[in-house]
Amino acid sequence: MKQATMIFLLFLLLTTTVWAKEPPISEDTQACLECHAMIFPAMLQDWEKSRMSRITPAQAMKQPEIKRRISAEKIPDALRDVVVGCAECHTLNAPNHKDSFEHNGYQVHIVVSPNDCATCHPVERKEYDENLMAHAHGNLVNNTLYQDLAASVNDTPSFSRGKLSFHPASDATQAESCLFCHGTEVKRTGTRNKETDFGEMALPVLSGWPNQGVGRINPDGSKGCCTACHPRHQFDIGTARKPYTCSECHKGPDVPAYQVYAVSKHGNIFSSLGGQSSWDFGSVPWTVGKDFTAPTCAACHVSQIVTTDGTSVAKRTHRMNDRLYQRLFGLIYAHPHPVSPDTTLIRNSAGLPLPTELTGEPVSRYLIDAGEQKRRKETLQKVCLACHGTGWVQGHFDRFENTLQTTNAQTLAATRILLSAWDSGVARGPAQKDSIFNDTIEKMWVEQWLFYANSTRFASAMAGADYGVFANGRWSLSKNLREMLDWTRLHPAK
Amino acid sequence: MKQATMIFLLFLLLTTTVWAKEPPISEDTQACLECHAMIFPAMLQDWEKSRMSRITPAQAMKQPEIKRRISAEKIPDALRDVVVGCAECHTLNAPNHKDSFEHNGYQVHIVVSPNDCATCHPVERKEYDENLMAHAHGNLVNNTLYQDLAASVNDTPSFSRGKLSFHPASDATQAESCLFCHGTEVKRTGTRNKETDFGEMALPVLSGWPNQGVGRINPDGSKGCCTACHPRHQFDIGTARKPYTCSECHKGPDVPAYQVYAVSKHGNIFSSLGGQSSWDFGSVPWTVGKDFTAPTCAACHVSQIVTTDGTSVAKRTHRMNDRLYQRLFGLIYAHPHPVSPDTTLIRNSAGLPLPTELTGEPVSRYLIDAGEQKRRKETLQKVCLACHGTGWVQGHFDRFENTLQTTNAQTLAATRILLSAWDSGVARGPAQKDSIFNDTIEKMWVEQWLFYANSTRFASAMAGADYGVFANGRWSLSKNLREMLDWTRLHPAK
Amino acid sequence: MKQATMIFLLFLLLTTTVWAKEPPISEDTQACLECHAMIFPAMLQDWEKSRMSRITPAQAMKQPEIKRRISAEKIPDALRDVVVGCAECHTLNAPNHKDSFEHNGYQVHIVVSPNDCATCHPVERKEYDENLMAHAHGNLVNNTLYQDLAASVNDTPSFSRGKLSFHPASDATQAESCLFCHGTEVKRTGTRNKETDFGEMALPVLSGWPNQGVGRINPDGSKGCCTACHPRHQFDIGTARKPYTCSECHKGPDVPAYQVYAVSKHGNIFSSLGGQSSWDFGSVPWTVGKDFTAPTCAACHVSQIVTTDGTSVAKRTHRMNDRLYQRLFGLIYAHPHPVSPDTTLIRNSAGLPLPTELTGEPVSRYLIDAGEQKRRKETLQKVCLACHGTGWVQGHFDRFENTLQTTNAQTLAATRILLSAWDSGVARGPAQKDSIFNDTIEKMWVEQWLFYANSTRFASAMAGADYGVFANGRWSLSKNLREMLDWTRLHPAK
Repeated sequence: MKQATMIFLLFLLLTTTVWAKEPPISEDTQACLECHAMIFPAMLQDWEKSRMSRITPAQAMKQPEIKRRISAEKIPDALRDVVVGCAECHTLNAPNHKDSFEHNGYQVHIVVSPNDCATCHPVERKEYDENLMAHAHGNLVNNTLYQDLAASVNDTPSFSRGKLSFHPASDATQAESCLFCHGTEVKRTGTRNKETDFGEMALPVLSGWPNQGVGRINPDGSKGCCTACHPRHQFDIGTARKPYTCSECHKGPDVPAYQVYAVSKHGNIFSSLGGQSSWDFGSVPWTVGKDFTAPTCAACHVSQIVTTDGTSVAKRTHRMNDRLYQRLFGLIYAHPHPVSPDTTLIRNSAGLPLPTELTGEPVSRYLIDAGEQKRRKETLQKVCLACHGTGWVQGHFDRFENTLQTTNAQTLAATRILLSAWDSGVARGPAQKDSIFNDTIEKMWVEQWLFYANSTRFASAMAGADYGVFANGRWSLSKNLREMLDWTRLHPAK
Repeated sequence: MKQATMIFLLFLLLTTTVWAKEPPISEDTQACLECHAMIFPAMLQDWEKSRMSRITPAQAMKQPEIKRRISAEKIPDALRDVVVGCAECHTLNAPNHKDSFEHNGYQVHIVVSPNDCATCHPVERKEYDENLMAHAHGNLVNNTLYQDLAASVNDTPSFSRGKLSFHPASDATQAESCLFCHGTEVKRTGTRNKETDFGEMALPVLSGWPNQGVGRINPDGSKGCCTACHPRHQFDIGTARKPYTCSECHKGPDVPAYQVYAVSKHGNIFSSLGGQSSWDFGSVPWTVGKDFTAPTCAACHVSQIVTTDGTSVAKRTHRMNDRLYQRLFGLIYAHPHPVSPDTTLIRNSAGLPLPTELTGEPVSRYLIDAGEQKRRKETLQKVCLACHGTGWVQGHFDRFENTLQTTNAQTLAATRILLSAWDSGVARGPAQKDSIFNDTIEKMWVEQWLFYANSTRFASAMAGADYGVFANGRWSLSKNLREMLDWTRLHPAK
Repeated sequence: MKQATMIFLLFLLLTTTVWAKEPPISEDTQACLECHAMIFPAMLQDWEKSRMSRITPAQAMKQPEIKRRISAEKIPDALRDVVVGCAECHTLNAPNHKDSFEHNGYQVHIVVSPNDCATCHPVERKEYDENLMAHAHGNLVNNTLYQDLAASVNDTPSFSRGKLSFHPASDATQAESCLFCHGTEVKRTGTRNKETDFGEMALPVLSGWPNQGVGRINPDGSKGCCTACHPRHQFDIGTARKPYTCSECHKGPDVPAYQVYAVSKHGNIFSSLGGQSSWDFGSVPWTVGKDFTAPTCAACHVSQIVTTDGTSVAKRTHRMNDRLYQRLFGLIYAHPHPVSPDTTLIRNSAGLPLPTELTGEPVSRYLIDAGEQKRRKETLQKVCLACHGTGWVQGHFDRFENTLQTTNAQTLAATRILLSAWDSGVARGPAQKDSIFNDTIEKMWVEQWLFYANSTRFASAMAGADYGVFANGRWSLSKNLREMLDWTRLHPAK
């Protein structure tokens, strides 16, 4: 080969890498980057690692539908041909944002909301809005029963003259407790002036901030928080698909989904092999068997899954219970999923805002019917069947349904003990207009369904052995019943 | 260099990669793959990533002994020169398999058993059979005392007229509770017809399925389940060597081996550095210092370990207690390992099926003697000495033996409190022919040895600090004793 | 291109890799390596993977200050130009080492101490010595109150005639319990003769060995243990920067820092993305946004952090509380950090060795003042501000300070219940010269501050939701108070 040819090839290589066309960044975003290279600089580097900083919506839309990561049919002209940078999100829909402020000639808002993300991702935004998560704030704070439970946990105690008394929990405490995951209400409460290297600036003051809870109420009135699962400013789809994201909220005695997953066979394979280069957490669509060998939370419940020949296994959904026919999380019993994501509508026959009677019967009119349960079960099982035989899947679900029954029986036994304690007067309950969460035996009762029955059900659903046995599972269910009974026998009527 | 030479080299490269001889897949397996590329497709991709799909037994046997992954001296001719595919395992020993069924001209069985794997891995299969794990099903269900404990955990409660009563746990509950890890008995209960894309098929119906417990009783009568540690269908040796595999069963308050490991120095180094490319979890033999810097569960207890100059540190063993001289897992006290893996033979002087007296003395005739203990201790210590000095190792084991004594003393104190409760009648025990696991104080006693003493011993054995102190360790041992005493003082005799 | 040119280039490549100058190993270390290639061989391979085995101090000093990993201004001539090998550390300062012994012509010591490491790292050693961790041994064993708590945990019980009695914990038990993390005192107790492949050898016998606790008292009289965070013999800085290292001691109900981190957004990002090749845990300085996207424990509290343009965010410190203005770890209340790392000097107004009164008021004279608190808070917040806006940071810290108040209130309520129990005689306390840690209600009180208040505070500081709610957080705080009250009501005065 002649030297000339080699030099030409080298030249070609250099030009394609060095002179490759830079992604077009908007002038507005360029203005942001100039100062913020110094102020919060690592925020920028995070964004620079993101796909959004390298691809324009127009480029993203050119993908065939199966590979597309954005669901908008049309993108506003001003946004089409620039990468998604600071200004593209933080100045969007400015009039709606109560947290918007004048900032070097721009109307900038702090809290980018699902309504902003919906510019490119309207389908995901709509689905998410029809999801329990989007309503997690209201479903908690507008349910008198749950608020009573929250107060029993969060109120600040003092003790004098033999008695406990309580001071209502501050907003700060609420924001760190239940609302950390359920979402705060973020409101603009004023404006403050701040001396900066670039002169004095007037900045909005926000209450309920920071927060990344799934049901956050945003200053633009929207519900939800995409960054709960898609952490800023990299918005990496692989992060949302890894179980660590879900573990932020779903790891605890009340909903030990991550712990259960971690000790399951699926979790073992994810931990043991998931770091191999053959696994690809970023691929769209996500090909079972090729991109991943064992599923994560997202694979079973959220992601668009196909097989190597392109056949669809599951469609992407941000209505997280599209593939869930039973709600494991017992309030206070496991039950079919509610029809509406707004659960504050629900009343049982005793007028309590609960999806079941105190004795366990589901309040059917608010819950999905048998047909819808069947559809969702089949949708979920299609994912299982990508790897497992029909006998395997049938056996697994038969056991799961048995566990719903037995754990509901455990909750019922505890409830009957509590009812007898209320009857006999050793504890004060609804008849005395007293909280049903403040006496010790009432707290034991809560642990029966919230910790132990839930844990046993999650272990059943995801095959995470000991969380159904000794680790807050059946062992605790059985011991707790004895202790509740002891309590009623030892304590005198009040 | 002449163009001709370069073109030839390029040609050579292409031919060696593209035209490299495909691994020979048997015709039978080829037939499986044809349909199953569509039915359970990801199962196939998993297998395609396996070593078994790329190497024939004949090739595997050519390795020098130290590098060999199969232990058979002779492989049946029909299997020698094809890779190990679907048909090679799922049609093997068909007459013995009660779960075998006619499937497109083949006799196929669902549950591949250790007897099948033994075709290539007879030494591992034999060792495993001499192992407590292989007997985990029978050791539980044929021990009346353990079955009584299991019932106290698994039976379904109801409460009426001031009393708890219990309904015996269903097979489904048993399969999800103790037998999830101990192994179910998988039996063929019938045949079902199924409409498929390929016409109607008659498929076996199995009870106790699915299950991957270590002591599973298989439809061919064999005991054990290789996939418990070698997950299908990749069978990756690195997975078995990572602690996540062991954590599936050994993570819980009763046997917190994984948690302890995770916070140990070994666990820290594994987590911090184990992802580096210099670590090789797949190498046979496994070279300490080169392939791994800190040991995992398998390194200390199972794997064949050599040093860089090829010197043997430890021989591979699937008799998991070949390197264990004391059984940490107290039933109800720590004790030397049983001689026979079938522990149902054991009776203490009170006739109870326990390896120690209720007051802690080991029932020597069923347990390994001092000579065997010494041999096993030295075998284990050889692994330690690959990295640690003799003074270090001596100091570590001295403390460990101290901990066996002190935790046994903690169990003894709890047992004496329980005995006094039985004597005084505040709880009903053997004298009243009552279960020894149903009263609250009996459950507290169980937690003393099953949770807290065990946790403290695992922390001692593997240097996992807080599991011997505040995390279910000595703190809980000492608090639980006080609470047991309180209980006896508060409760009136029955 | 001519063949000659290509051959020359190939030759150049070969010589630079194969003939690259070997790092100069001292003759003394060479002598160690010769035998120890056989004795503890993996220890050597570990060292060979270390930076110390490849770089001489002289080379390390040539780095510009910002990239320098050693802080000495001058290195002894004998050590300057050889890599840091066995002999360089294990024969250093021999006369001071009581564990030094004659070994094939060398005075070798087993326990390399911070004083030895200080030869190259004097600044880190000095800072560490001014740190609570360096004093962790004495701060525990010389505080009568903490020793009483330790005894209540570690002493060995027996039960007879209705009473528990206790045998003082052995040194072996202490070493595995509190002192595992706090550090033992390592002392030479004698010399033993050992038969080896190289003839009989006289080796020192050490008590308190092995141990890697942060406050270890070494045979040369120094305090501390560098290997607690920089595991031998690779001493990899990346390991110290990963949260797994901290988890060895900071994972447990008393100080659940690692668990909290793991479920925080930071922890999620570390787990999800930290394995990517763009993350560099070994870089000095450590560039936020480039080398890491989410901080680890070290990033916020220890490491030297810069931005991509080289601006300093935080200076490296081994005084671990330089960036901490409040001590979360309540003893028994959260309080400003002590001024002196030797906390045995502290006495509250009741003469108790506690940094607060029993009722929570800080004992100001021993604690940092408001000015120092402000400085430390700002130092820490500078790290936050590398990625987060000022409103975000302000909001986070406001909540954190609210949590200090509410959790201290929870501790106060529990303390008042305990005081009333002592007053009424249902439990025996200081007035009866009884331990304040042995009655059940006293143990419940300990859990209130040591487990539940601490857990809630760690969750607040690091945004790890459920550890402030249901996982040993506010739920447990509120339930425990009710149970304490129940206890006082059920138990008769003694």
